[in-house]
Amino acid sequence: MPQDVLAEIQTLADLRREIRAGRMTGHTAGLAPGKLQCNIAILPAAHALDFLRFCVRNPRACPVVGVGETGDPGLPTLGEDIDIRHDLPRYRLYRDGQFVEERTEIAAQWRDDMVTVALGCSFTFERALLAAQIPMRHVEQNRTVPMYRTDLPLVPGGPFGGTMVVSMRPLRGRDVPRAIEICARYPQAHGAPVHVGDPSEIGITALDRPEWGESVTVRPGEVPVFWACGVTSQNALLAAGIPLVITHAPGHMLICDTDEDATGPARTT
Amino acid sequence: MPQDVLAEIQTLADLRREIRAGRMTGHTAGLAPGKLQCNIAILPAAHALDFLRFCVRNPRACPVVGVGETGDPGLPTLGEDIDIRHDLPRYRLYRDGQFVEERTEIAAQWRDDMVTVALGCSFTFERALLAAQIPMRHVEQNRTVPMYRTDLPLVPGGPFGGTMVVSMRPLRGRDVPRAIEICARYPQAHGAPVHVGDPSEIGITALDRPEWGESVTVRPGEVPVFWACGVTSQNALLAAGIPLVITHAPGHMLICDTDEDATGPARTT
Repeated sequence: MPQDVLAEIQTLADLRREIRAGRMTGHTAGLAPGKLQCNIAILPAAHALDFLRFCVRNPRACPVVGVGETGDPGLPTLGEDIDIRHDLPRYRLYRDGQFVEERTEIAAQWRDDMVTVALGCSFTFERALLAAQIPMRHVEQNRTVPMYRTDLPLVPGGPFGGTMVVSMRPLRGRDVPRAIEICARYPQAHGAPVHVGDPSEIGITALDRPEWGESVTVRPGEVPVFWACGVTSQNALLAAGIPLVITHAPGHMLICDTDEDATGPARTT
Repeated sequence: MPQDVLAEIQTLADLRREIRAGRMTGHTAGLAPGKLQCNIAILPAAHALDFLRFCVRNPRACPVVGVGETGDPGLPTLGEDIDIRHDLPRYRLYRDGQFVEERTEIAAQWRDDMVTVALGCSFTFERALLAAQIPMRHVEQNRTVPMYRTDLPLVPGGPFGGTMVVSMRPLRGRDVPRAIEICARYPQAHGAPVHVGDPSEIGITALDRPEWGESVTVRPGEVPVFWACGVTSQNALLAAGIPLVITHAPGHMLICDTDEDATGPARTT
């Protein structure tokens, strides 16, 4: 995003306007601090009940924080004027489980049978960890957090299933208990980690070769800590091969009116 | 339940067998301590997506802890061998929003398009409060907890909406903060209270005339504390007037394999 656009963004309303107009098409990490950011999955209503079942059964990986009405691009519990056809900086379209294109709006692709599901994301607990002086290596190294397939089974729901995808952040031993305590406060944002230590215990063979994101350095005295990751739901949606799925592009999240410290989905009505 | 049946029940498996056989048809309060007990709503799949939307938007009142597959009477994430057609001590059937009958099993009423939704219940936080030496007046007085309609609006979802129903427990002032802290640990069981003090602030006109349950004594130095109540979802289901809804009879809950202290729905697969 050009610096002059960033400089002009003073408020959440400004930011949403810039995203909606297609002028802000970059990552949302660090923007609108304190506001909930969400993973987004948009899918036909015919598959929405199964997808919600799948999410409810796997709350660590797929914490549902909002659901739109069928055919309605609003998400009133997450923001008064959200229009999901325009309010992500960048979208990805998949047909029959295959990537088709990346777009900055989906007005023409929206249909009367589409349902939007918003899932909490790691930005929430990362901000809380940084506020507690627990450093994030991928932030220090200016990389995308490394993500891995695991052999941790998900509870299936309809055509959705598979195994969990996790993100990894190396922590000093003394920070591990505190980090877990902090993250446990955010069940709507993946909650506490799912594994600490030996990657091979959860089916990860090479820590330096993540399947998504970039490898980060694990220093002596540090232990790798693994959190359930939003890519889990995207994977499950693609593996199911349903006719049309639209998601956010990685890191290009929905920014909500809701505070990330809210104890549940916000209520604006 | 006859005392001789109760005396024979040694294990959760025994208890489920007695309920399944129709020999145990009483309240489940206090049974299988430490095991999650659930409110149950069984409804046609045509309305299940809307109902899940409604629940996700109102997590205090309607905390979803499990969902069955369409037409499948199992709830594998809550117990390995649950058969929801038999495993509640007592059911209520409603057609087009009208009460039809109370039954002890629903084998003949079950249909291939039915979906079971399990919602957390107040037994979980009541047990935690009692363990912390915070007395429950309705338990002391051997009454059903008093419940009230409020004017607290729910976020609608499809045909489901209305206002929140709350339960009330009077607490000593010094117990209020501790009680709130404890209940906040159980978001899957209505979480922290929604109101403390003046009932008229939430639209309750007469504390001594609850709409469900029985009135309890509020002593000097005590303050009425109000929790979101599972009757909220039952009310919303009835008000929507959908063709067929089956629920548990009040106090006759599903007893799960899952521990109530689990941080999320259990995984048995």
